[in-house]
Amino acid sequence: MRWLTALNYLPVVGENKSINKDMNGKNIIASTYVNANEKNLNAINPATGLAIEGDFFKANESLVNDALASATEAFQLYRSINKDLKAAFLNAVADEIAAITEELVKRAAEESGLPLPRLQGEVGRTTGQLRLFANLVAEGSWVNAIIETAQPDRQPLPKSDIRRMMIPIGPVVVFGASNFPLAFSVAGGDTASALASGCPVVVKAHPAHYGTSALVGEAIKKAVEKTNMPNGIFSMLYDDGYEIGAALVKHPLTKAVTFTGSFKGGMALVKLADERENPIPVFAEMGSINPVIFLPDALTNKAEELAKKYAASISLGAGQFCTNPGLMLAIESPSLTTFKKSLADAIAAVPSATMLTNGIADNYNRLATEVINNDKASILGISNLTDKDLKNQSKAIVAEISATEFIENPEFREEIFGPYSLLVVAKDLSELESAISSLGGQLTATLMADKEELKNYISLLNKLTDKTGRIILNGVPTGVEVCASMQHGGPFPATNDSRFTSVGSTAIYRFVRPLAYQDWQQDLLPDELKDGNPLNIFRTVNQKLTKADE
Amino acid sequence: MRWLTALNYLPVVGENKSINKDMNGKNIIASTYVNANEKNLNAINPATGLAIEGDFFKANESLVNDALASATEAFQLYRSINKDLKAAFLNAVADEIAAITEELVKRAAEESGLPLPRLQGEVGRTTGQLRLFANLVAEGSWVNAIIETAQPDRQPLPKSDIRRMMIPIGPVVVFGASNFPLAFSVAGGDTASALASGCPVVVKAHPAHYGTSALVGEAIKKAVEKTNMPNGIFSMLYDDGYEIGAALVKHPLTKAVTFTGSFKGGMALVKLADERENPIPVFAEMGSINPVIFLPDALTNKAEELAKKYAASISLGAGQFCTNPGLMLAIESPSLTTFKKSLADAIAAVPSATMLTNGIADNYNRLATEVINNDKASILGISNLTDKDLKNQSKAIVAEISATEFIENPEFREEIFGPYSLLVVAKDLSELESAISSLGGQLTATLMADKEELKNYISLLNKLTDKTGRIILNGVPTGVEVCASMQHGGPFPATNDSRFTSVGSTAIYRFVRPLAYQDWQQDLLPDELKDGNPLNIFRTVNQKLTKADE
Repeated sequence: MRWLTALNYLPVVGENKSINKDMNGKNIIASTYVNANEKNLNAINPATGLAIEGDFFKANESLVNDALASATEAFQLYRSINKDLKAAFLNAVADEIAAITEELVKRAAEESGLPLPRLQGEVGRTTGQLRLFANLVAEGSWVNAIIETAQPDRQPLPKSDIRRMMIPIGPVVVFGASNFPLAFSVAGGDTASALASGCPVVVKAHPAHYGTSALVGEAIKKAVEKTNMPNGIFSMLYDDGYEIGAALVKHPLTKAVTFTGSFKGGMALVKLADERENPIPVFAEMGSINPVIFLPDALTNKAEELAKKYAASISLGAGQFCTNPGLMLAIESPSLTTFKKSLADAIAAVPSATMLTNGIADNYNRLATEVINNDKASILGISNLTDKDLKNQSKAIVAEISATEFIENPEFREEIFGPYSLLVVAKDLSELESAISSLGGQLTATLMADKEELKNYISLLNKLTDKTGRIILNGVPTGVEVCASMQHGGPFPATNDSRFTSVGSTAIYRFVRPLAYQDWQQDLLPDELKDGNPLNIFRTVNQKLTKADE
Repeated sequence: MRWLTALNYLPVVGENKSINKDMNGKNIIASTYVNANEKNLNAINPATGLAIEGDFFKANESLVNDALASATEAFQLYRSINKDLKAAFLNAVADEIAAITEELVKRAAEESGLPLPRLQGEVGRTTGQLRLFANLVAEGSWVNAIIETAQPDRQPLPKSDIRRMMIPIGPVVVFGASNFPLAFSVAGGDTASALASGCPVVVKAHPAHYGTSALVGEAIKKAVEKTNMPNGIFSMLYDDGYEIGAALVKHPLTKAVTFTGSFKGGMALVKLADERENPIPVFAEMGSINPVIFLPDALTNKAEELAKKYAASISLGAGQFCTNPGLMLAIESPSLTTFKKSLADAIAAVPSATMLTNGIADNYNRLATEVINNDKASILGISNLTDKDLKNQSKAIVAEISATEFIENPEFREEIFGPYSLLVVAKDLSELESAISSLGGQLTATLMADKEELKNYISLLNKLTDKTGRIILNGVPTGVEVCASMQHGGPFPATNDSRFTSVGSTAIYRFVRPLAYQDWQQDLLPDELKDGNPLNIFRTVNQKLTKADE
């Protein structure tokens, strides 16, 4: 097999042994551990503020160059390997991760403060999405093959044979996210979809979970070895600042960037990418407050049930989800008063929880204090610190504001990352619609409605549709199903490009572009476009979607 | 029908009569002629330098606001009208244009200097692509419906019902292009694909063909009236400078921009769009020199035939195509000497032709003079002025340069818009590949090869593939088939976004984004996503592509 000749030109510097008994903290370049001489980094347990066992090496510019040079070289092999081998590799990554679940969950819990069951679920989600992409790749129709055969006798001009499919664009830089140390990190959805598309990946590990990153990085490294992939398809670099991330985005061989995090962080990367000599796409999933509209009949019929459901959704995972319901809207009514009372009670009973990092906790407490001290909003409910010995604890908070004040004061439309939500009370439907119109783009929007009432709110629905990538009926926005029909990406500023999703199988389309072959020689066409349809995939042939072997 | 209530709030200012007997030169806002008080504009015949009959009104900021306000209002109706009605509208635009073919071709010839047969072909292409999009919309599967049904009993968590499809993004600003006064202008591919997607269009008419724009604008206006579309889906504004175009791109209600033209012009629009408070996508098709590689056996077997074929392609339409073969590359050999001699003779015999505008002719002559006076390149062939009484005439020119000089001097890789091409002579294959590696992104790349030799150039093919959106074997890049498999868009700087095409039916995907409905009520879902598949379209239902009525 041609791709077995893959480069391995980067020397294994030092021995390939663990720094401590459980953890290798070296940077990974082309699936190989390499040394870096700069200062050691340590992971911090946010609940204690103390360093966790394991030393990690800060990367440098030279490693950035090596990572992208090896990714570019590996791309020429990896882009066109057999789809079943690529699927086997993705499944092998899932297998390697599944095999270390216990160790991984333990380490991730120490580093993130997230509870074990949540992290166990996240391992399942991570391996599940790797397998989802393996299946997608093995099936093969995702390349959107379109074939139009020649018409040599057409008048006034003959028609050429033209065949088009999606091809991968090249090395992708993936920024690990803090809030999903597994599912949106080293082998998360971005990495899985980029590797599935045929693009090599260079991961910038998130400083909030070096050890979790190291364990997953080693799992990918092993899968590369076991399935004989070109080594350069995976590299991972450590940094506690912005230097390495910026160098990765600016590197001339980088072809795309993925990021999940703050608006400020995302837009900084977009700016760097736009300023390159050759601009590249950045897929930044940024701030979203995920409005939830409580319609009158729903409140009348189940105010207390809704309050409990939403107190739970607001405080789930210390509110550290991009789909956290940070905004609730309703028209004033006696039922709303009942809802408010129940919500206040439920929020007051939420136990405090460890936030992901000291920075995130500080930021949450600062913004929460600003809301508490702001005379335009009032506090509806607030929880107590239940464990005073732990650091970086968050209190759940729900505030209330009139729609008039909400519309006039844009600062209330900004995301407060944590267990916080703001209830906007409108005098009437018209004011409710105005409040919706004042919003920026969102990842999700939710309607809580009784079956018969929704059809009376078509104008409101249209306004909401224009603001969001996913619209939910009678559910909660937290919990993002990983499937083909998911859309996790909304109008600016929720993401910088609402045409793509970062969750679900269509996330693969972030890393491809169409290429058309005109009058090309059959034996040199990719299998996807050959006569006889050797891969047995769906193709659009002369305007018909078919598996026929035209 | 709901959309019959479409707004018509913009007054018909003045009477709806022609300024002269053939032409109404007023701006069109919401399919209605409106006055503007600023200075009159006139079209210029580039062959004579004289004004052509007909006065046109320069638009102003207030008309920009009116156009986008009415487009935004119309969008709420137009986005969800029945697909057959939308198809009927697109066909009606084609019918109205076909009905005025004679007048249109005559006016376009006067304004552009292009020959009548070419313009007759362009009318056919323009109506053909409108009908192509009508068929696409009527068929309906283009929305990429993906349905995953609920699994209420799934462990550990139930799965929601999630259904996703492409929805239109809103008002699109289309810049008419100078070099295709019909097919890339007022009702060209950009307008056709945007209207097909469900987006209203605001056209900035190109100053090189006001009259052609007016005639086509009136055709669209009539089609809107005859098929009872919301008036706001079409507006068209005149300007002889940059002010109106910039105001359109910066307008908060604009959701996307299309442009075909120079690198400088395209990047200026990209910059304006990026600097908006809400950045929007710009689809700019910019410079491309469309490399053609002549492989040794092909040259040995048919040097003279290839020379004639390429002299014709280089000088077609005075070389004013974005796919003009502005660069040829070959390895030195005795056959190449024969090719060069034949090419020089064929180019010398090319009759001079009128260029589109005085600005384009001046620019061409300035850049051609720079090449002629540059001691790194030599002139291989040049034609004579065959009609000295006409203005803005172009001479066809082919220059030659060594691969060494070509690689070292980036100015030779810039587009010279006109009947010009540069032959790069490499000493060997390695130098040929280096020359290819030095190139920026391209719309097309072409290989002239004998059947057996192509497979010996896999490394070259890989390098070329990474540079282009369309790769052609033994043809010429001029002539872009309008079909589903076409890709007209390549890596930067050929376009600013290689993931999309501006020609062919998939051009529709520039103006849509995915929206997911979670647990949504059946009666409020779009028909495309309803149980029972009422539109009988292809949908991916629980991971199977099917027309079954799941």
